[in-house]
Amino acid sequence: MKITDLFVKASKNVPVDEQATNAKLLIQAGYVHKEMAGVYAYLPLGLMVIENIKQIVRDEMNKIGSNELIMTSLQRKELWERTNRWSDQEVDVWFKSHLKNGTEVGFGWSHEEPITDMMRNYVSSYRDLPQYVYQFQTKLRNELRAKSGIMRGREFVMKDLYSYSLTDKDHDKFYQETIDAYNRIFDRVGLASSTHFTYASGGAFTQFSHEFQTECEAGEDIIHLDRKSKVAINDEILSDAMIKGLKINASNLEKIKTAEVGNIFSFGSKKSEQLGLYYTDGKGAKKPVILGSYGIGITRLMGVIVEKFADGKGLIWPESIAPFRVYLATIGDDKDVHHSAKKLYEFLQKEGVAVLYDDRDLRAGEKFATCDMLGIPYRLVVSEKTIKNKKFEFKKRSNIEVEFVNQNDLENLLAIKS
Amino acid sequence: MKITDLFVKASKNVPVDEQATNAKLLIQAGYVHKEMAGVYAYLPLGLMVIENIKQIVRDEMNKIGSNELIMTSLQRKELWERTNRWSDQEVDVWFKSHLKNGTEVGFGWSHEEPITDMMRNYVSSYRDLPQYVYQFQTKLRNELRAKSGIMRGREFVMKDLYSYSLTDKDHDKFYQETIDAYNRIFDRVGLASSTHFTYASGGAFTQFSHEFQTECEAGEDIIHLDRKSKVAINDEILSDAMIKGLKINASNLEKIKTAEVGNIFSFGSKKSEQLGLYYTDGKGAKKPVILGSYGIGITRLMGVIVEKFADGKGLIWPESIAPFRVYLATIGDDKDVHHSAKKLYEFLQKEGVAVLYDDRDLRAGEKFATCDMLGIPYRLVVSEKTIKNKKFEFKKRSNIEVEFVNQNDLENLLAIKS
Repeated sequence: MKITDLFVKASKNVPVDEQATNAKLLIQAGYVHKEMAGVYAYLPLGLMVIENIKQIVRDEMNKIGSNELIMTSLQRKELWERTNRWSDQEVDVWFKSHLKNGTEVGFGWSHEEPITDMMRNYVSSYRDLPQYVYQFQTKLRNELRAKSGIMRGREFVMKDLYSYSLTDKDHDKFYQETIDAYNRIFDRVGLASSTHFTYASGGAFTQFSHEFQTECEAGEDIIHLDRKSKVAINDEILSDAMIKGLKINASNLEKIKTAEVGNIFSFGSKKSEQLGLYYTDGKGAKKPVILGSYGIGITRLMGVIVEKFADGKGLIWPESIAPFRVYLATIGDDKDVHHSAKKLYEFLQKEGVAVLYDDRDLRAGEKFATCDMLGIPYRLVVSEKTIKNKKFEFKKRSNIEVEFVNQNDLENLLAIKS
Repeated sequence: MKITDLFVKASKNVPVDEQATNAKLLIQAGYVHKEMAGVYAYLPLGLMVIENIKQIVRDEMNKIGSNELIMTSLQRKELWERTNRWSDQEVDVWFKSHLKNGTEVGFGWSHEEPITDMMRNYVSSYRDLPQYVYQFQTKLRNELRAKSGIMRGREFVMKDLYSYSLTDKDHDKFYQETIDAYNRIFDRVGLASSTHFTYASGGAFTQFSHEFQTECEAGEDIIHLDRKSKVAINDEILSDAMIKGLKINASNLEKIKTAEVGNIFSFGSKKSEQLGLYYTDGKGAKKPVILGSYGIGITRLMGVIVEKFADGKGLIWPESIAPFRVYLATIGDDKDVHHSAKKLYEFLQKEGVAVLYDDRDLRAGEKFATCDMLGIPYRLVVSEKTIKNKKFEFKKRSNIEVEFVNQNDLENLLAIKS
């Protein structure tokens, strides 16, 4: 894509009330726009990153046999009353309003209740199970404070997966498959080494839930990590009994600031019992369905990645989620330079490399500053000098040094098989 | 995809309060789930159709040089007060709520105001224009009645495009390009011959707006159409002066029930003036930006297509938006039959044909009923008889007759180039 065909405009005016580094950088680089505290619009570049993250998550969710659907934002009061999660005393993040006829409605901050209630239409026999469904939903949560940029929004995108299993054993198997899928996802977005599978508060149904916590100074959580045994415990539940039970040594635990990028819950059969989701087994006995729920905060994940990788010059995206893999610019106004750059641009497009061609009439320094700010992984430059040497100037966003590479080197560096 | 790997379950229980044919059929076939009146969740098959429609619309929007972004649902009161569209007296479809600190917020039913306000960050000089941006947004509208299924929801998906132009002339040129793009879209989803470019009420800024109205008995609009001259007028604005002005003959006008699938508006500069969106021209003069807005109701379009094409046996999807192009089933339990079907399934997948393989252990009649209900365009059957004759049984969903085709015929029918 040519940069002049793209809505990509650096904003010099970062809102004065913006405190979070991730939001400041994303606003400056033209990825997001702040509508109000904790509420951000995603400009074309920002939407590309979201869609790239979603596509990785979608791919891994499909691999474990789950199907994508989309539930609704508008929620029925009487449904949430059945699980005692309607009142503002129990759940303090509801946005609520009224239909014209006075009926109170809520806006979805979570979707266990409506999906489980819906399943009653489709599940009656053991033959109808298991079912695994997920969605990418815009959740609305009336947070008291929203100061972490896109890491904790009042409006944000979440992937939530729900599993409906016959037995605890079936559930446990799928639970493990989801853990494996989550590990693959965090690996693919570049967070494998800094993301830790963590014991967390279990709530009403099980002893523990599990979280995926990424080391991040801007995070709101604290974990205690034993790097050797790869055991991590959320600060909220750390206890001597816990340390003993997990057979770890307290002195090995490292206290780390983290951001929760994923969580998984076993609900057992309690929610199914509350909402009336039962199946008939092979012998005609009526049994409640076993429920699990598995979340990944898509926009939060984007924010964490910004916080972890950005430097003084701007954003740095992992290749897998960058809006473009390659940024291409020219130096000088020579006819051959433009011709050679155009040829390279067309070659990269033909090979399916997402390339942003900076065709603006600006000085090289300004173009390079744009490239750095946008965080595109690779920068390619064509100049009279590169043409003379039959090479291209190549630079990784995360490196300082510039390399000079020929066509063959370039194809290897970008893993182009032509 | 194998049907047993897909969340696709016919629901025998259509809600008793459901009046709309489109919703009844979509619920029965397992495409949508009714959460409340005018609020529908989209199950995997339904989401596939939405995504297919969106992809066609996205493709045509990108072709006319516009960029996709995504605005927010949460809306600021003070912004909408500036254009006098906050009060319930002026706009009667708002859902409103409060932040924890008491600040009143609305939920987006339209997005001219926030997008135009946002543009003030990015537009200051004539060099920053034109800008064309669009989104697929879940709109929330507090409709008094919601009895038309997915054709008029309280929560629905809309594509809205906004154009920001320097001059009326530039605006008119893009306005025409959008008309052409809309015609291509309605052509690609199978509605070309029944969708009419229609003069409609202009509102405050221009004499007319324009609508794309599709002939549909379940629609809520009425147009007067001169088929010969291809002029259509919304019943709301029909007048003798209008007929005279358009140089048509009143006796040629046909009165038709229609559904509005698209609309386009010229806002002139009034909204830019209200919201403070100005640019500086080449001579240093400050001028308001010219605004246009262009909508297509994605979920409504899906509902209209259901209403127009469905028959007594179920849904019928145009090939371009069907969740699968081909439905494949076997008759009998013969080993060769299963082997041959599996080979065909793998071949179609390899060729990129979206195929739904009904691997359930059911009688042929039940399978065929599923295929008809789901509305998959082509049905392929493998049986002992077809193997003996070295053919496949082939049937179009919209035809009654079955054909017997060989591998070569099949590749031609499905436009497979191997």
